[in-house]
Amino acid sequence: MTLQERVHDYIKTSKVEYLSFFQETIREASVAGKEEGVQHMMAGRLKKAGFKVDMWELSYKELSKSSYFNSTRTDFIGSPNVVGTLKGNGGGPSLILNGHVDVVPEGDRSQWKEDPFSGTIRNGKVFGRGTTDMKGGNLAALIALESLIHTGTTLKGDVIFESVVEEESGGSGTLACIQRGYTADAAIIPEPSELKIFPKQQGSVWFRVTVHGVSAHGGTRYEGVNAIEKGWLVFHHIHQLEKTRNHRITDPLYETNPIPIPINIGKFEGGYFPSAVPDKVIIEGRMGIAPGETIEEAQTEFEEMIKALAAEDTWFLDYPAEVEWFGLRLPPGHCPLDHRLMKQLAARFKRQKGHDPELAGSTWGTDGGLLTQAAGIPTIIFGPGTTKMCHYANEYIEIDNIFETAEILAMTIADWCGTVNN
Amino acid sequence: MTLQERVHDYIKTSKVEYLSFFQETIREASVAGKEEGVQHMMAGRLKKAGFKVDMWELSYKELSKSSYFNSTRTDFIGSPNVVGTLKGNGGGPSLILNGHVDVVPEGDRSQWKEDPFSGTIRNGKVFGRGTTDMKGGNLAALIALESLIHTGTTLKGDVIFESVVEEESGGSGTLACIQRGYTADAAIIPEPSELKIFPKQQGSVWFRVTVHGVSAHGGTRYEGVNAIEKGWLVFHHIHQLEKTRNHRITDPLYETNPIPIPINIGKFEGGYFPSAVPDKVIIEGRMGIAPGETIEEAQTEFEEMIKALAAEDTWFLDYPAEVEWFGLRLPPGHCPLDHRLMKQLAARFKRQKGHDPELAGSTWGTDGGLLTQAAGIPTIIFGPGTTKMCHYANEYIEIDNIFETAEILAMTIADWCGTVNN
Repeated sequence: MTLQERVHDYIKTSKVEYLSFFQETIREASVAGKEEGVQHMMAGRLKKAGFKVDMWELSYKELSKSSYFNSTRTDFIGSPNVVGTLKGNGGGPSLILNGHVDVVPEGDRSQWKEDPFSGTIRNGKVFGRGTTDMKGGNLAALIALESLIHTGTTLKGDVIFESVVEEESGGSGTLACIQRGYTADAAIIPEPSELKIFPKQQGSVWFRVTVHGVSAHGGTRYEGVNAIEKGWLVFHHIHQLEKTRNHRITDPLYETNPIPIPINIGKFEGGYFPSAVPDKVIIEGRMGIAPGETIEEAQTEFEEMIKALAAEDTWFLDYPAEVEWFGLRLPPGHCPLDHRLMKQLAARFKRQKGHDPELAGSTWGTDGGLLTQAAGIPTIIFGPGTTKMCHYANEYIEIDNIFETAEILAMTIADWCGTVNN
Repeated sequence: MTLQERVHDYIKTSKVEYLSFFQETIREASVAGKEEGVQHMMAGRLKKAGFKVDMWELSYKELSKSSYFNSTRTDFIGSPNVVGTLKGNGGGPSLILNGHVDVVPEGDRSQWKEDPFSGTIRNGKVFGRGTTDMKGGNLAALIALESLIHTGTTLKGDVIFESVVEEESGGSGTLACIQRGYTADAAIIPEPSELKIFPKQQGSVWFRVTVHGVSAHGGTRYEGVNAIEKGWLVFHHIHQLEKTRNHRITDPLYETNPIPIPINIGKFEGGYFPSAVPDKVIIEGRMGIAPGETIEEAQTEFEEMIKALAAEDTWFLDYPAEVEWFGLRLPPGHCPLDHRLMKQLAARFKRQKGHDPELAGSTWGTDGGLLTQAAGIPTIIFGPGTTKMCHYANEYIEIDNIFETAEILAMTIADWCGTVNN
């Protein structure tokens, strides 16, 4: 039997056990600060499989030394990282498999058909917060590695399994792994890509623009200047900048994407009283960062646009709009298209599915940006589940998707790291 | 000595006492629900001067029978009305002098140079919340009446002095006076008009428009519809409607007013999260109501404009914007320009000041709207102090302004009601 066949058989006969483990991980409501339970499960599992396991709580002091650090937390109590290392026999390239265990809150429970932390199985799907984003992907990576171990495969290169926290709130988990010295020749993150291969991932950064007006009583509104009207001008110019920035993106990966790096205006708030002219508007949004671009470059371009408003409307000379950068700050990630790991993953995909994989640029940020920009590791996103499910009520993942991904990953790992006895 | 001279002398010799009483009324921080103290002072003063005094707490049950009732309060504990009646000798027209004792909150105390409830006197001005809006006007009316009483003047017509609550929050005080049966042939409200005569007063009503979009992740914002963009279309159409409505105002009273009945957009709120496409925008504002127009007519015109949006953008066919009317609802007030009281007031102004008074339409609503529309009483606004001071920090009134107004009012009352012995 070929390795492929043995891996396939192992997975086929282990499905019930893996699904039961998967349900247990879903039942751990691992929102930020509450990842300890699921991390103990991951650590135990890795140890049993023969990994050298490192589990530690993130240090605010250490993290804050990095310019990539971005978090609203001031401590990381209840949020330990788990890293399992499977030493290879030597002579092969190393690989990081990185996945986050933190999940976003379940939101309005009344919109869920079942308990969001039940892990209910129905019609070939597992339901629950975190099934798609991204405990399903983590499971696929775990199965891939365990299938290699159980089939007696000895890898040449090291595999580092990073089960991280804090992805949803700025990437401190992955940053802590980088700071702790974990590195490799390449990385795969099994975030939900619908089994598409994402060699490029959009970065993103949040902005806040404060626009000023002059207050007056509503009955003599002409004595004031409505900040909402000035805010609309800013809104308009942000969309102009979006056009300019996207015009530059010629990568065929983004061919079918109408706006590869959107600037979303997610909040527009002005005024507080119906009978008063608003003297302030707050505009908040998210600017997409192109793969290959730094966050700083994008920020400078945005700030220049805001400064240039004064040429359009002299109002902004006397009352300049102010820009702040807050909250989210995810660098973009990428892996060269001709990278050997890209080719191996695509080949293994084709052998499994019978057709070429779809390549795309992700429209959202991942920890891959940190791996790429802060650690210089080429990173690919490839995982089960669809993005559409993320962060919504009734999140689910298709079970077949997980096992299919696991099989492709197992063989790709074997190809990349090299094997001694196959 | 003529009555004019005797009134003048009385006021001249009583200034210190009146200022001291004025300061006491300012020291009563009579924000909504806390008018009891100042009302007891007013009642005592009126009783002492020979008025028949009626003091009662407003009844929610009674008020809610009226279609003009509009209040966020569910009881009126701590908010009594005071009405003093000075019966005339018979045969003369009656007059209401109406003024509110409630004041708006002092706001940010750090912006006040002195305690907002100190009644500090400096450079010919009295400082404090409510000095201009409108305890100064109330004092002028009180001085006018007391000067007639102290000079032994017997009026033919009745004078009703209404010291009301709740003007700042919808007019329940004046509505309660109307419901209790208080009426007269005409009314003067000494709200701060800078001694201009306002025969017409703008009404106003608050609106809330809810505009819908479709949410999506910011990284794929093109999958959603940003409610802010749709909200801007509503904003634009509201301003178009403002143009149409003001185009119809040809009254020379408003000749110098750039927008006689403005529609102010005081709040524009959309979205809650930088990385999500906003699916809802709330627009709140204040629509001015033209004298002679009913609130219902203006509301219908506004609602029709919102309905017509669907012809401009089919989006509104599937996702119609919704209109609510909430909070403020002040009908417009007016007095015919050729009314005898108008002529008498203008003549007494000219005799006092040596020139014709300035006539204008007020840009804000007063309790005069209720007197005009709910009770059919022609109502004029004429009082000391300037609107600019209202509702701001460091509110003040010029002392001379009060006494000048008092003198003009005293002689106007004598002319209107008629006197027996002068």
